[in-house]
Amino acid sequence: MTSTTTPDNGVDVGRLVETIEAVKDDPNLAAFTFRAKSSWEHGMHNVGEISTFTHADSTDESRVAPYVLHGDEPPALLGTNKGPNAVELLLQSLAFCYAAGYAANAAAQGIQITRMEYEIEGDVDVRAFLGLEGARPGLTGIRAKGRISSPNATPEQLAELCSYVQDTSPVRDCLANPVPVETTLEVV
Amino acid sequence: MTSTTTPDNGVDVGRLVETIEAVKDDPNLAAFTFRAKSSWEHGMHNVGEISTFTHADSTDESRVAPYVLHGDEPPALLGTNKGPNAVELLLQSLAFCYAAGYAANAAAQGIQITRMEYEIEGDVDVRAFLGLEGARPGLTGIRAKGRISSPNATPEQLAELCSYVQDTSPVRDCLANPVPVETTLEVV
Repeated sequence: MTSTTTPDNGVDVGRLVETIEAVKDDPNLAAFTFRAKSSWEHGMHNVGEISTFTHADSTDESRVAPYVLHGDEPPALLGTNKGPNAVELLLQSLAFCYAAGYAANAAAQGIQITRMEYEIEGDVDVRAFLGLEGARPGLTGIRAKGRISSPNATPEQLAELCSYVQDTSPVRDCLANPVPVETTLEVV
Repeated sequence: MTSTTTPDNGVDVGRLVETIEAVKDDPNLAAFTFRAKSSWEHGMHNVGEISTFTHADSTDESRVAPYVLHGDEPPALLGTNKGPNAVELLLQSLAFCYAAGYAANAAAQGIQITRMEYEIEGDVDVRAFLGLEGARPGLTGIRAKGRISSPNATPEQLAELCSYVQDTSPVRDCLANPVPVETTLEVV
């Protein structure tokens, strides 16, 4: 049922295959260090900035300007709604990771996509954040629901791809399995 | 050394204390379900949306419009740089979580902040994302560096607060410890 022609998903399959072959020859080409910064403004409002990253020991300069994001809390969590909060951004990150992974792997398999949405929900009990006992600080569960349309793949193929994307998703792996986090503070 | 007056950090300490007392009386007030959606555009580009959330079984309607975010990959990962990628957004989320936690807890302790920045770095090997063996899909390590200035707290107090914020940060907990992630797909 899968088409053997390259689907017009907007993913350059030729470059994808070249990238995979290049990484096979030199695994260092798979090494990335990504970065994000925040500057405190007032209250719960912070301004974030994402710009360069390191790829295979070199700084990527492909971005003409940094991405600027605003983070805040809603009034229920003492903020003023100048942006989403950190947990919402975490869920957004999982949605983007699943979607990018699905788009790339669908293209590689010749699966055409005409529609793809993700809705992510996460439950959190803020007692630990408020200094109270009774719950872990982070999310107790995340539910990710994908919705996909394809004119040339069976529901079984699409479900199998969903499962593959889940298993290879960088963000899902960071949530489902522990990542070492080192935190340091400089007083200036 | 800590001031006994409420510092002008922009955090309403009166409301913070009220919130803590209310949650002590009714732990259900600590329950939040947050959400994020994404819609696929083309290639690795997706448009995200964050709007309402559920707080203590009710829908919060405080936001006048959804927050719209763009996610993409850089050319090195087959995208067109229409937004940060998912892993960068994950790091941004940790920066915002630390900063909001620090601002709130500093206010509660009477610690004035005049400057606060976070820089977060994360290392990832994209071999699993490309379908190759050799590395976990997610980040192998995250380094978070805070930079804080305060006119009325000692470096020791600021370091202790940093450690406390780390231990109670929802996003750090989601990274350092496993979260159950349930993924489902609907074919339409």
